[in-house]
Order: sequence, then structure tokens, then C-alpha cells
Amino acid sequence: MPTATTDLRGQDFLTLADLAPEQVLGLLDRAAQLKIMQADRQPHQFLSGLSLAMLFEKASLRTRTTFMVGMSQLGGFAVDLMNEHTQIGVRESIPDIARNLERWVDALMARVYSHRTLEELAAWAEIPVINGLSDLAHPCQALADVLTIREHLGGLAGRRLAYVGDGFNVCNSLLFAGAQTGMHVRVASPVGYEPDEDMLERAQEIAEDGGGSIGIGNDPKAAVDGAEVVYTDAWVSMGLEDEAAERREVFAPFRVDRDLLALARPTAAFMHCLPAHRGEEVTDDVLDGPRSIVFDQAENRLHAQKALLVAILRGDDAFEATGA
Amino acid sequence: MPTATTDLRGQDFLTLADLAPEQVLGLLDRAAQLKIMQADRQPHQFLSGLSLAMLFEKASLRTRTTFMVGMSQLGGFAVDLMNEHTQIGVRESIPDIARNLERWVDALMARVYSHRTLEELAAWAEIPVINGLSDLAHPCQALADVLTIREHLGGLAGRRLAYVGDGFNVCNSLLFAGAQTGMHVRVASPVGYEPDEDMLERAQEIAEDGGGSIGIGNDPKAAVDGAEVVYTDAWVSMGLEDEAAERREVFAPFRVDRDLLALARPTAAFMHCLPAHRGEEVTDDVLDGPRSIVFDQAENRLHAQKALLVAILRGDDAFEATGA
Amino acid sequence: MPTATTDLRGQDFLTLADLAPEQVLGLLDRAAQLKIMQADRQPHQFLSGLSLAMLFEKASLRTRTTFMVGMSQLGGFAVDLMNEHTQIGVRESIPDIARNLERWVDALMARVYSHRTLEELAAWAEIPVINGLSDLAHPCQALADVLTIREHLGGLAGRRLAYVGDGFNVCNSLLFAGAQTGMHVRVASPVGYEPDEDMLERAQEIAEDGGGSIGIGNDPKAAVDGAEVVYTDAWVSMGLEDEAAERREVFAPFRVDRDLLALARPTAAFMHCLPAHRGEEVTDDVLDGPRSIVFDQAENRLHAQKALLVAILRGDDAFEATGA
Repeated sequence: MPTATTDLRGQDFLTLADLAPEQVLGLLDRAAQLKIMQADRQPHQFLSGLSLAMLFEKASLRTRTTFMVGMSQLGGFAVDLMNEHTQIGVRESIPDIARNLERWVDALMARVYSHRTLEELAAWAEIPVINGLSDLAHPCQALADVLTIREHLGGLAGRRLAYVGDGFNVCNSLLFAGAQTGMHVRVASPVGYEPDEDMLERAQEIAEDGGGSIGIGNDPKAAVDGAEVVYTDAWVSMGLEDEAAERREVFAPFRVDRDLLALARPTAAFMHCLPAHRGEEVTDDVLDGPRSIVFDQAENRLHAQKALLVAILRGDDAFEATGA
Repeated sequence: MPTATTDLRGQDFLTLADLAPEQVLGLLDRAAQLKIMQADRQPHQFLSGLSLAMLFEKASLRTRTTFMVGMSQLGGFAVDLMNEHTQIGVRESIPDIARNLERWVDALMARVYSHRTLEELAAWAEIPVINGLSDLAHPCQALADVLTIREHLGGLAGRRLAYVGDGFNVCNSLLFAGAQTGMHVRVASPVGYEPDEDMLERAQEIAEDGGGSIGIGNDPKAAVDGAEVVYTDAWVSMGLEDEAAERREVFAPFRVDRDLLALARPTAAFMHCLPAHRGEEVTDDVLDGPRSIVFDQAENRLHAQKALLVAILRGDDAFEATGA
Repeated sequence: MPTATTDLRGQDFLTLADLAPEQVLGLLDRAAQLKIMQADRQPHQFLSGLSLAMLFEKASLRTRTTFMVGMSQLGGFAVDLMNEHTQIGVRESIPDIARNLERWVDALMARVYSHRTLEELAAWAEIPVINGLSDLAHPCQALADVLTIREHLGGLAGRRLAYVGDGFNVCNSLLFAGAQTGMHVRVASPVGYEPDEDMLERAQEIAEDGGGSIGIGNDPKAAVDGAEVVYTDAWVSMGLEDEAAERREVFAPFRVDRDLLALARPTAAFMHCLPAHRGEEVTDDVLDGPRSIVFDQAENRLHAQKALLVAILRGDDAFEATGA
């Protein structure tokens, strides 16, 4: 039974820095609980009558589908505001959009190019704002990531996670989640593509407090050596398409293939936030191989975000009211 | 307790001329009632099992979101047909689209360039058709407007409302709503941009019957003098983009700024149907100032439309069945 | 009371070949039953807590609206994945998309250019995949078609159906549905535009087994002669736009007009899967005339698909649990 640390009523969720380590762990417990309830077809309409607006500046399969389906499973409703209708910052200013939406819906989830857009939405809207991916962070992904690792390794504290590739949004959030759950995280990125310095510094402080550690370097082999999980992400994230040719050259030595994975523990799991660019950051044999848990990871987007939505919109009361 | 004047079962709502004055007042009472129920989280799933199709030829934040969220709060379902799928009049004729939709859904809401499209949809579809904005009228907006004025002034009959700017769809509907609720409405538009003559004439007749009045002129100062509410709208409505340069010149003297607002009553409220074009039809200090009630007005789109949907799809039975 | 032949739990529905004749008839009974329940406003939320993902490579009014509204009436939820978000095969491979979706939703409906895409989705996804139109087949349409014919003629076995026009997806599925229900189907297509040979052969075998028959030719008059139903479809299906000019010439003698219809039985019904291209494959006087049942047919998309969804997602248990 989770302790009352998953009560995030009214809070924004822009980066994992918005959560204390025990809140992350509380959310993972709630997510696991909701996953069982869903598998058992136990009703859990905790958000009946509540609604979520969703704003996407970039494409989305996982985030969009899981938030819509998740709200539906929770008895609530999600509305995609759609770019062509919203034209954020063009047809209407960000503050004005925020001050409209807060009147009609109970929370806003946004996928944006610039993290600054999220901060502006959060500053103006009284309703909670959830980061569905920005250029700085992808905290919903990281929640699903540590949930998946915990399921596969049986625990998080002290476990060894290697991230190989672009030190961008996904990496930034993974550092935080790893630090908050006491993992030892090793990152290998090309020179000039390291994680955000501020995020890194704060994650390192959390890691020190919690018994984990974070190491940053430029050598994929060193990072993967002995790892229990090897994680990578696209080389050319959405919005960076004009850097594609240069990035493909710079990142080539960071491809996760059979040889690189062989340096990790024999049972090491392979993770990727998807969509994967087969033959670029990961080879088919790894992605489709027996160690890949990428679809378990994708599935957990649903359960982690449902836990987050309940925590933000109802708090622990939701579970307590049903005796769950 | 509203009297049984909000029973509009099966009726179209293309302009406010479709309603008698007492029906407008009945809808406002129902909207106020639904607003309280929503604030108190009292279930009011009056439209369970019912569905609304929505068709948008133009962009929408407020109309689209509030109809979707409103149907959801009422226990029903709204489906956005989406232009790329419907291709109204291109992929399929308007009469054919109408005769398909009436077989599956319980009502249709449409935002169209030409009011003629709405009339054609309404003529062919046996289900009720709701105007979500046309070049002639924006009656859902006007319902929310008078609801908001009533909340802020404590009443409508005899109150003084000034509309400054384009005598277009929003103005046409505001004239009607003002006339139907006994207000004194003064409009100031540039020469050649006055309200629709037919709409004006009909609104004036209603005003005479109900103790209100309507005055049309070209002097913003005269219109605003002594007003309790000052209302404006965009100079370049959707679909009129190629007239933008000319309009910006013609409308410049009709900008609502601090000086113009100073001519109204000291407590006068400022209203705008949004999205606002800051620095064009209204200055930031007015829009963001203490007299601005534009977000209350935006919020009331939700409550007014929920009342309308219940009236059209269920009538008073809905409320009576729950003892509400 | 239908026998237990509508239990299709977990099955794909790519073409009507996926169903035995008694399963088709079972679905028609269930569709009729659900149609009455809907008309009587009897709750039938058989799919509560279940969700359907929908993927559209091409435009859709009927398929999209009826699946969304149908899932809603059944208490479930449908999410349109949207091309701009999914970018199937571009942003992410088909197998990867399939293996993501199966983790979150209970079924997938897809409208695709190439039937191969559906087969690939079905091969990779463990959830049922439903064909919402491919270049090979339109089986949901055909279910609605035979449901409509049964309603209008009072039965199916031994009845005479003529299809005039393009031997494409709609025709292929109609052949199957006709064969499975014991009808005598006559097709007239221009030379080179005959139905798919493999589909035809299999449909003919089924017809022989079931007492029906299938005849293929190139003479519209011969096909229509004595028919009880005359059916046509667009000459230029979605995706074939660059063949438009040539097709309009080739298909001109296959237009269904008053003269052609006069060769059928005096009471013969006219059917079309819509959207109609007025003046091309059918004249206005036929489409809008007293024999046209095209909107009954469109309506039945809803009821037939609801029966299909219940059969695939819950089976007969759904009905039995409610004593229906």
C-alpha cells in the first residue's frame, strides 16, 4: 500500500524536479496498482467528470494515445486541442490560451518545442500543466522508464543504467529519475551533445543524497560496461531535422549494436523511448532481440501517466474512497 | 426554478431569432444552474447515450473545446468530423452529408464561412443544427455574453451595453440577445461596417416590444458614453484576411483603449469574444485590466452551451427527472 | 435469438473470408438487435472500459463517425490516431506501431491504401485488426449492405443483386457477402475493371455451397435485368485520382440512370456506399428517387459495426450477461 506521497493535487509536472524522490516511488507503486486493476478489468473510474486538454506542437503516438486512453479508462475525458485550431502564439497568445483553458478543463498536457512555452502555460494557467515532451525534459517517459526497470530488475536502488547517445530531453529526465530512485547512471554522449548542465547538476545532488550516482562521459563502451540496462534514443529528435546529416556522422560510434550490448551484463535489458530509427541509433537485432523491453516500456507510459493524472487531479483520496 | 421555456427539443439554433425572449431567459437560468452543478461536482449526465457531431470550416479554441467538454460533462459524446475527412461540398454534397449524419448522431454543430451552409444543413438534416459561428451570427457566443453581463451587473433589463467595432456576426447576435433581454444597446461601427440590416431591423422590433432599445452610429465615443459594458471584437475576422490592411486603417479610431473606456461608467466591464488581437481592437491595459471580464465570458461559453444542448436534446424533462 | 455464432473474440476482420456464412448471419441478427436497442434508448454499454484505435490513411465520413459514435454508444472509447501524428511507415515502422498499440487498446481499425498494410498490422498486433477499407476489400460496408437488403427485401437467400461499375474493394466484399447469404449476384464492369480474381473464385465456391450464385460480365443491362437491388460505387476511388479522366470515359456506359434502373424489378432498390459523385456513376433522379435506400444503408454502418465490435471484443457473453 503506497504511503500518502502521491498526493500532487494541483501541481504542475514540468520536470521530475517537481517531485521528491519518495513521490516518484509513490507514483511507481500507484502505477503498478493501476496496471493490475486494468489487467483484471477492475473499474477504476477515479476521474469521472474530469477533463484534460492536450496540446501538441509535435507529432505523438505514445503520449497522445496513452493520455487519451488513460483518461478514458479513468472515467474522464481528454480533448486534443489540435494545432490547426489552437495556433498557439499565432492566433492567440500563450497567456490568453492558458487563461481560457483553465476555465473549462481540469488539467493541460502539452508537447512543445520550447520548454519555455510550458513554463509560460504553467505560469498563467491555474490548472496543473503536464510536460508531454519539451526540448528540456520528458518526465512522463522517465516515470514509465523506471517503472519498467523496476519490473524487470526487481528493484531500482543500486542498479546500473547506461544511456548512450544524445544528451537531450529523454536523457535529462532519465538522469533525474535514476537519481531519485538511487540508481547508478552512466551517460555516454558525443562531445557537445552532453545533457543539460543545470539538470545534470541538480540530478547529481539528488543522487548523492539518495545513494545513487551519475557519471557523464564520451565513451559508449565505458558507459555500457557492466550495465544492467542499456538505453538509447533517436539521434535526430523532432525539431532538429536540419542537423540530421551532421548528427548521423557524429553519433555513428554511439549506435547500440550487438557488440556494444555484449559489454553489458549478460542479462542486460535494452530500452528505447521510441519511435526507433532502425539501423541508426539501434540495430534491428538488438531492438527486436530477446533483451529488448521497449514495448513493455511503451506500455508503461499508460500506467505511469494514469498514476500521475490521479495524483494531480484527485490525490490519494481517489484510491482510499474505493478501498483500493 | 426556470419555467418550462427551455424546452427546445428538436429545434435548430441558427440565430437568436429562433428563440423567444422568455426562452433566452430560461436558458440563462438553466446555464446558471448547470454552472453551479459543475462547480459543486454534482453529476448531471443528462445526455447519456447522446452524441453531437461537430464540423469546423474555420479554426476554433473556445467553441470546439467547450462543446466537447460540455458533452462529456453531460455524459454524452462529441465527435469532430474534421475538414480533411469531411471536405464539405467537395468530397460530398451538403445535403448528402446532412442526410448521413442525422442517422448516427443526435445533433450537429457547425462553424462555417457562409451562413447559407448552415441553412442548407438545417434544411436537409432532421436533427437539430447549432450555429457555432457563421458570417451572419454567433448566437452561442451571445448567450454566453448575456449570461456574463447578468452575473456581473445583477440583471439585464434596462442596462446599457456599447459595442464598438465591426458590425459583423458577433455584433449581430449581441444586438438580438440585448434586445431579447431588454437592454439598451449602442453600436458604433465605421461607415460601411454596420450590422446586417435585416438582423438589425428584427432586433429593433424585439427591443421595442421588450422595453429595450438599439442605436446604431459611427461614433465610438457617443456609443460608449455612460455604458455599463463595453464590447469589441476583432477587426479582421476569420475569412477576411485579404482585407486586413484596409480594415486596420478604417477601424483604428474604434480601438478600445483606456481613454475610450474612461467615457463609460466608472465600473463598466470590458468584454471581448476572443481571440483578442492585442494592440489592434483593444489595448493590453484594457484587456488585462481590472474591468476586463473576458475570461468569465469565455468560461460561460461552456455553461450556456450545456444549457442549450440539454434544451435541444432533452428539454426540461432532463432537469425534472433528477429533481434539479 | 441469435445462436452462438457471433463470438469472434480476438479475431481479425480483414475480409469477409474471415467469417463463416453462419457468422455473417449471426452478426446481422445482432446488428438488428442493437439497432432496436438504440432506437429504444435501451442502454447497451457492452464495451465499457474497452478502447479502439483508428488509423486513417484516407478520408472518411461514414467509417470514422460510425466507429466513434458506435464505441461511445457501447460505453467504450475510440481514439483517432491521426496521420500527422502516426505517419505510418515513415515516422515509425508498421510492425513497431502494431506492437505499441496492442499494449494500450483492445482493437485497431484501419483504413489503408494497400491491403498489405492491414495484413502487416494484423500479423504483428495481437489485438484484433478491423478493415475500414483497403484497396482489396470493404467488409464493414458489405455487412451493412446485406443488413440493409435484408431489411428491405425481408430476406437474402435467393434474392437478386446487381453491381454495376468498378470491380474494386466494395464490389469484392459485396460478392463475398452476397455469396455467404445465398444471394444471386450479377456484376457488370468495364473490361479490365473486373473484381479481384482470387476473391471472386473464393466467393464463387461459397456461393455454390450455399445455394447462391455469382456472375461476372461487362454488360450493365444484362446484370440489372430483373434485379431486386442495383448497386454502384464511385468510378474514381480514393487513391486513383490520376486515372480520373480515363476512368470517366471507360465507365460512362455503366452510369446508373433511370433507364438502366427501369430494367430491374419495378420495386428494385438502389444502393451506393457513398460518397456519391452525382452525374457520374449515378444520376440525381436515381440517387434522390423513391427507390434509393442509400441513407438506410449508411445508417446500418453504425449498427453492423457495433455488432462486429461486440462480437470481436466480448462475444456473445455481452448479450447474455444482460439477458438481451
